[in-house]
Amino acid sequence: MAIVLGDNQYGKAEIRLLHVSRDGGTHEIRDLNVSVALSGELAATHLTGDNSAVLTTDAQKNTVYAFAAEHGVDHIEDFALLLARHFVASNEAISFARVIVEQYPWERLGGHSFCRSGREVRTATVSHDGRDSWVVCGVRELVLLNSAGSEFRGFARDRYTTLAETTDRILATAVNAHWRHADAGSTACGPGWAESYAGALDLLLAAFADTYSYSLQHTLFAMGRRVLEGRPEIAEIRLSLPNKHHFEVDLSPFGLDSGGAVFYAADRPYGLIEGTVTRDEAPPPGKAW
Amino acid sequence: MAIVLGDNQYGKAEIRLLHVSRDGGTHEIRDLNVSVALSGELAATHLTGDNSAVLTTDAQKNTVYAFAAEHGVDHIEDFALLLARHFVASNEAISFARVIVEQYPWERLGGHSFCRSGREVRTATVSHDGRDSWVVCGVRELVLLNSAGSEFRGFARDRYTTLAETTDRILATAVNAHWRHADAGSTACGPGWAESYAGALDLLLAAFADTYSYSLQHTLFAMGRRVLEGRPEIAEIRLSLPNKHHFEVDLSPFGLDSGGAVFYAADRPYGLIEGTVTRDEAPPPGKAW
Amino acid sequence: MAIVLGDNQYGKAEIRLLHVSRDGGTHEIRDLNVSVALSGELAATHLTGDNSAVLTTDAQKNTVYAFAAEHGVDHIEDFALLLARHFVASNEAISFARVIVEQYPWERLGGHSFCRSGREVRTATVSHDGRDSWVVCGVRELVLLNSAGSEFRGFARDRYTTLAETTDRILATAVNAHWRHADAGSTACGPGWAESYAGALDLLLAAFADTYSYSLQHTLFAMGRRVLEGRPEIAEIRLSLPNKHHFEVDLSPFGLDSGGAVFYAADRPYGLIEGTVTRDEAPPPGKAW
Amino acid sequence: MAIVLGDNQYGKAEIRLLHVSRDGGTHEIRDLNVSVALSGELAATHLTGDNSAVLTTDAQKNTVYAFAAEHGVDHIEDFALLLARHFVASNEAISFARVIVEQYPWERLGGHSFCRSGREVRTATVSHDGRDSWVVCGVRELVLLNSAGSEFRGFARDRYTTLAETTDRILATAVNAHWRHADAGSTACGPGWAESYAGALDLLLAAFADTYSYSLQHTLFAMGRRVLEGRPEIAEIRLSLPNKHHFEVDLSPFGLDSGGAVFYAADRPYGLIEGTVTRDEAPPPGKAW
Repeated sequence: MAIVLGDNQYGKAEIRLLHVSRDGGTHEIRDLNVSVALSGELAATHLTGDNSAVLTTDAQKNTVYAFAAEHGVDHIEDFALLLARHFVASNEAISFARVIVEQYPWERLGGHSFCRSGREVRTATVSHDGRDSWVVCGVRELVLLNSAGSEFRGFARDRYTTLAETTDRILATAVNAHWRHADAGSTACGPGWAESYAGALDLLLAAFADTYSYSLQHTLFAMGRRVLEGRPEIAEIRLSLPNKHHFEVDLSPFGLDSGGAVFYAADRPYGLIEGTVTRDEAPPPGKAW
Repeated sequence: MAIVLGDNQYGKAEIRLLHVSRDGGTHEIRDLNVSVALSGELAATHLTGDNSAVLTTDAQKNTVYAFAAEHGVDHIEDFALLLARHFVASNEAISFARVIVEQYPWERLGGHSFCRSGREVRTATVSHDGRDSWVVCGVRELVLLNSAGSEFRGFARDRYTTLAETTDRILATAVNAHWRHADAGSTACGPGWAESYAGALDLLLAAFADTYSYSLQHTLFAMGRRVLEGRPEIAEIRLSLPNKHHFEVDLSPFGLDSGGAVFYAADRPYGLIEGTVTRDEAPPPGKAW
Repeated sequence: MAIVLGDNQYGKAEIRLLHVSRDGGTHEIRDLNVSVALSGELAATHLTGDNSAVLTTDAQKNTVYAFAAEHGVDHIEDFALLLARHFVASNEAISFARVIVEQYPWERLGGHSFCRSGREVRTATVSHDGRDSWVVCGVRELVLLNSAGSEFRGFARDRYTTLAETTDRILATAVNAHWRHADAGSTACGPGWAESYAGALDLLLAAFADTYSYSLQHTLFAMGRRVLEGRPEIAEIRLSLPNKHHFEVDLSPFGLDSGGAVFYAADRPYGLIEGTVTRDEAPPPGKAW
Repeated sequence: MAIVLGDNQYGKAEIRLLHVSRDGGTHEIRDLNVSVALSGELAATHLTGDNSAVLTTDAQKNTVYAFAAEHGVDHIEDFALLLARHFVASNEAISFARVIVEQYPWERLGGHSFCRSGREVRTATVSHDGRDSWVVCGVRELVLLNSAGSEFRGFARDRYTTLAETTDRILATAVNAHWRHADAGSTACGPGWAESYAGALDLLLAAFADTYSYSLQHTLFAMGRRVLEGRPEIAEIRLSLPNKHHFEVDLSPFGLDSGGAVFYAADRPYGLIEGTVTRDEAPPPGKAW
């Protein structure tokens, strides 16, 4: 029974790029973290140490910076598409590329002054196999909290269940969501990416805020459905929602009542709710994920 | 030569408290991280294990939650003052208390829905010795960037100096600032704390943005001076400013010119610039720091 | 085109458990981080908020602690198998369970005294679908470095390649490896798990140390092959190896030569090399990953 | 009332240096994180942007690497002393330097192969004012646990005290300790530093393990006293000990008894116990801290 090489990929991860566009006194900045992963005919370097097919990860890093200079950086989806297609097109051994771009948001203070908004991080994951491209957009570290409108009751009970039912709890999570565009090339492009992202983000926020929640799963589905209802260009959305537990503090030993006002924000453990919301006739995901 | 106990303190650190105020359908939240440190006649527990003077850190935690219920949580400076004074007043062995409160900012999405703004963290450090109180307010993780208006030249050169002079660089930092109020009790209180904090924060942002910078030290002093000029209730400010280096990428090997557009955002090492700006007749700091 | 629920799972993550076994004056400890993820007929809670099929994540946490008391905690694979089988067997709605256990290593200082060894973290990932079980063991945060015996040359060159070839470089990585046992139930069990883990770990270390490396891919394959050659119970191993770059510092501006002695340890970006090594007749992975 | 510059310092922080010594086939490595902070006549750069007295932080970084090549890196105390004295001696404006070195421990796997031991980090903090030098050695992230031999009872009780007394609890902490050498220049030097560090570390471990603990304060003093008793070259030690709480899980709802076996390892909040142990005739600390 022989020992063989299976799936493999390699690339440069976390290439930190700041791009500044200067238009007179008003600058625009893009603050990005770019990761590249390539795969293809790479058995030789693994098996014999023959590196002749290996585009170095250093060259991948150089390419990211050079492309930023040559093509500019406007929408991260377009930038990632450009890179992914380049890596496959220009290297015979490479048959598949995935480029992941994270964008950190900044607020404007002045013409060339900015303050980092630590709110959500915007992401784009682009995959390309030489023929087709797939675009998955997303958001992470979007921390949301409802102080009303959330209950959790009627759940199953087994020997180890002690949780009290509640009709009024804090619901808090850090949204990690990725949504797949039905078509990488036509529906959205250029400014369309920004509009699509902003629209999806607004729908996530709105659905979280205005859904009366019976469980975090219930809220997850509502968030996903809202995005799909409002954004026809999105075929599927995957959400990973930690349940950031806030426990009401028992103040009865001190003759006090928290009155729904005083909570302990716990770190670990936490619930973790993960789910996909999709269209029943969505195009197949191919190599998007 | 005997071995003796020197300075010591103890307390409960990082008590995570969410406080919800309900006024009809509109809620207000305070998301805090509270740390308590106490000192006094505590030699016995160290030397002999006699704990009769030790207020447990568990009780300190309970006190924080109970006070939130009894007194509410509005301005973190007031909440910290209340706690610090309580610990000294109610425990014979405790002669000094320091309470540090961090407040995480949230944006409103709806009547009871919120989105965590990951921008700056607001802090209050209150010290109390049974007679006097000191209030130090502050901010951390306020990440700022200027893409113009910064140069660095004319510096000393020694054998190990290779840095090129520049008249146009990226200036970026993560502001960590603490400012001491001249008077813990009278000038500011209640809403005054919020107004003072907001004012100081605005002055820090404005001074960073509109100072033409010859060095990060130069910007540091400008930021400190601006706060003191604009806020008479503040006696002194201490700033710790990492120089978050952004290096322009050399694209000449590829026949390209970055054109002041393409930068590598470095992690380590980083410059670290720290300084105090004060009034020459400021009241002495006492035990504020 | 209807909007539908796709794949989903939920559970309690990062349940921190310390288990102490007392045998006279000599204690044994297990310091674990346990995560549970369950899936099955859970559409109702997502679609309508009907939670009647939901075993609460709080009960999952309770089960972990209760099982530790009832069954003890010896080998993490056995503990995870016990839990995964329980969740599926005892909940009609649950058809699949995955339990991930991380074990933090401690060194003994005395009969009941321990010092945390911060070296590698041991992991076990157990999956169970009501009929079959799969066991994946692993290690993460195992940081290794060779200061000789590593070259990197003969690689592809494109327009963006500037990297110099080298016949002597630092090779450093943080091993993240997971290996699938061919049979969850028979080959290894009880003490067998510990012996198998220790054996695999030794083989990883030995292969890293004694392989003359032509690329990190080459080392990855050598490490994987060594494990499979030495441990017949392991069917497949997946390695994720960041290339922790150490760049020799150019001291020529100071008239000095590093002499292969002085290196800058970089944080980001880093190469990321990922690959699978398997047997060509390995049993299919099923739901192991 | 004028606004003036107060205390200030600047430098390069977190310079990551790997130094390799080659002696035939057997290599020695030093994996360091070096931070430099300088102060002196630096008002001009703050007040007017005149940088003529500023030794750039980039040059400080270069100096660290160049000194590693010129002088080698054996004991971190000696390396820090060399650097601190250089910065003050060679720059007219600089009157005080502090150099902090962290050393990450590695275990040997082979002649040129190493495995990072993630146990404690060793530190040295050297201060120099042009005439005198001070050396503070230390350790951080040394995580210790006793599963017996710890009680906590007889403590003060106030309205907010609910903690039960216990005669058997888990005692766990992450030791952060710094000890000041009485004499930076004579007692210890070269190999003496290594022997002194190893000796102090052993004493900390032994005192933690064999002290029957009545409180973490009690253990803290015992650890400090043991170091001073055993190491005459050390004048003073400061310890910061988080109380890493492990709470026994209440399994009575399930008809089970933890039996002192099942604990929840909590993250936050945590007790934080800090204290100094010193000699009553210790030389004054000067600018050591």
